[in-house]
Amino acid sequence: MTDDIAPFRAIEISQLAQKMRRDGGSIIHMEFGQPSEGAPQGAVAATINALGNDASMMGYWESAPLRERIARHYREQYGVDVGPEQIILTCGASPALVLALLTVFKPGSRVMTARPGYVAYRNSLRALSMAPVEVACGAEDRFQINARHIREAAEAPDGLIVASPANPTGTIIPPHELADIVAACKERNVQIISDEIYHRLSYGIETHSVLSYDPDAFVINSFSKYYGMPGWRLGWLVCPKPYVSAARARVGNLFLSPPALSQHAALAAFDCEPELDARVEVYRRNRVLLIATLEKLGITDVAPSDGAFYIYASIAHLTDDSIAFCKKLLAETGLATAPGVDFDPENGHRFIRFSYALTTELVEDACRRFTEWMEREFLAARHG
Amino acid sequence: MTDDIAPFRAIEISQLAQKMRRDGGSIIHMEFGQPSEGAPQGAVAATINALGNDASMMGYWESAPLRERIARHYREQYGVDVGPEQIILTCGASPALVLALLTVFKPGSRVMTARPGYVAYRNSLRALSMAPVEVACGAEDRFQINARHIREAAEAPDGLIVASPANPTGTIIPPHELADIVAACKERNVQIISDEIYHRLSYGIETHSVLSYDPDAFVINSFSKYYGMPGWRLGWLVCPKPYVSAARARVGNLFLSPPALSQHAALAAFDCEPELDARVEVYRRNRVLLIATLEKLGITDVAPSDGAFYIYASIAHLTDDSIAFCKKLLAETGLATAPGVDFDPENGHRFIRFSYALTTELVEDACRRFTEWMEREFLAARHG
Repeated sequence: MTDDIAPFRAIEISQLAQKMRRDGGSIIHMEFGQPSEGAPQGAVAATINALGNDASMMGYWESAPLRERIARHYREQYGVDVGPEQIILTCGASPALVLALLTVFKPGSRVMTARPGYVAYRNSLRALSMAPVEVACGAEDRFQINARHIREAAEAPDGLIVASPANPTGTIIPPHELADIVAACKERNVQIISDEIYHRLSYGIETHSVLSYDPDAFVINSFSKYYGMPGWRLGWLVCPKPYVSAARARVGNLFLSPPALSQHAALAAFDCEPELDARVEVYRRNRVLLIATLEKLGITDVAPSDGAFYIYASIAHLTDDSIAFCKKLLAETGLATAPGVDFDPENGHRFIRFSYALTTELVEDACRRFTEWMEREFLAARHG
Repeated sequence: MTDDIAPFRAIEISQLAQKMRRDGGSIIHMEFGQPSEGAPQGAVAATINALGNDASMMGYWESAPLRERIARHYREQYGVDVGPEQIILTCGASPALVLALLTVFKPGSRVMTARPGYVAYRNSLRALSMAPVEVACGAEDRFQINARHIREAAEAPDGLIVASPANPTGTIIPPHELADIVAACKERNVQIISDEIYHRLSYGIETHSVLSYDPDAFVINSFSKYYGMPGWRLGWLVCPKPYVSAARARVGNLFLSPPALSQHAALAAFDCEPELDARVEVYRRNRVLLIATLEKLGITDVAPSDGAFYIYASIAHLTDDSIAFCKKLLAETGLATAPGVDFDPENGHRFIRFSYALTTELVEDACRRFTEWMEREFLAARHG
């Protein structure tokens, strides 16, 4: 079988890393975008409590209190009005994206995304027989889509996926630019889907919801990043009112319901903000540490890392094969990273992504290992 | 917005029932296909144990031991060889079906299903821009697809979804007929997807996997029925070897990974067979009780209830509006059932589905309520 859906290269790196760990190696996992700390304590306590309760609470179920709590979150965090009926709970942000795509687009629909970008945008569009329209976004665009890309497209796309903070860069679209993107989409009748999964993870610029500018946008989010619950598989879609009944009909058939325990845990997670905010402070320190280390090693061409927990750095002066670079780095130091090709098949072979959603001790260890390896591999020659 | 994806009517009934319960009513839930007992004890214990362990176990994760355990299950239960790499874990059987459809078919593909049948077959096919080809299966066909339907189709479909035991009927396709269906599909080059979610729930006829006859079939299953874990959202796809890499690429992009806690629980559930088999004995008694009650009330036109935990009964002599019948029954007795229209938009308005995956006490209570109501509503007139 031939296929146009590429596998994740980071998964391959991760499997190599896990094999090394089983063989006794010391591994630092920076290849995936998942917080290492797990769910906050209150969420774990709520889970244990739910397990002790009525078993009939563990059936096919969508939590009304959780939908109301998420709707309240939009009022409190962004000052936007969203009804609980617009919140559709899903098994993570990935099926929420699939649900949005299948609710509003058709096979053949053209959907614009930034390149570099999260690999599943391109691949899920293709798997659903839709057409990704990728816009190469470089340093001059802060690696992000802007209103000009939409206004100047020869043919207006049917849809646009925006992601801010973005994966793999962490770059945030500032509010005035987000408003202008919305304006450009209205001009050309482009449906917006906004992936806001990295919201509440930022280090200077605030994260604004697209809903502040466009009540007709679909918004995707989940409990996997700020809330520290990736393996709990719980996300949500904010669905524009005219699409609610179509989206509800689809979710019931395609996915049925989200995990019951995770819904109990997630409701409690909203009360764990001090614990979660403390993690963001750890990430803030890790980010500074990692950027400073890269800089000392001459890796200075780094995307604006405004949010999320990623550094996306050019290694063009070192290699034009990021997969080989990441594999060698892993084999010789135990440091697992993601090659840029997952996010950008054209230019990603000259980029690497580090996730710093770890303890600071681990990031310090990673910086030490990377520095020693870089000095041995590349910098010794420079001085030699 | 107009839409051709119908909502579940059983959900509407269930919401009415939940409102009645909140208002102090005594409700018996027979409207959904979910066991009332919850996960087996060993699975709950494994969950609590996993919660106390390393938080990093709760990331994006697919359990290799669980995939190996499921592969072993196919050897032990059916005597068929399936490699662990062919087992793809998903958030329930619903996304496993979506994954199979998107791996092997394209927009426009024609996929045959039995009518009556599980509503999500028709609706998920439509949501993915594929074409359901529904075959009306009545009492003369034991409400099931057979080889003749495939051989005699004017145009061969691209695919066939078989379900045995079926929802809403519980009817099982006997092994010689299953073998003949496979033969007919080979003759006409029809790809089989077999929904085996109700396996291990049968009361006389054994459940045979289609894999015994066709190693190239996709098989769907989950922990929601026999294993009693519907709200845990864990299912699997057995993927034919030539499609494994295509299916893996799709699942990673469309859905990422299944719930981590549920995977720990599911591995333990395989060791809870005595507890689970005892439940099947309860269902066996419930089934006899319910059929006898219906018979006494003159409801004798019942689909062969070989397995699962459903009775699908004709009420054509009582009504031609099963939705109104179910709503009135609920309002006046607290007994929630599913109208046949969810499973058969053509003839389902003359059918009703009862789920008996409850304690025997509850089924006895349901039988009492239904008998009293029937006597008041219909039979008094007969004697009067």
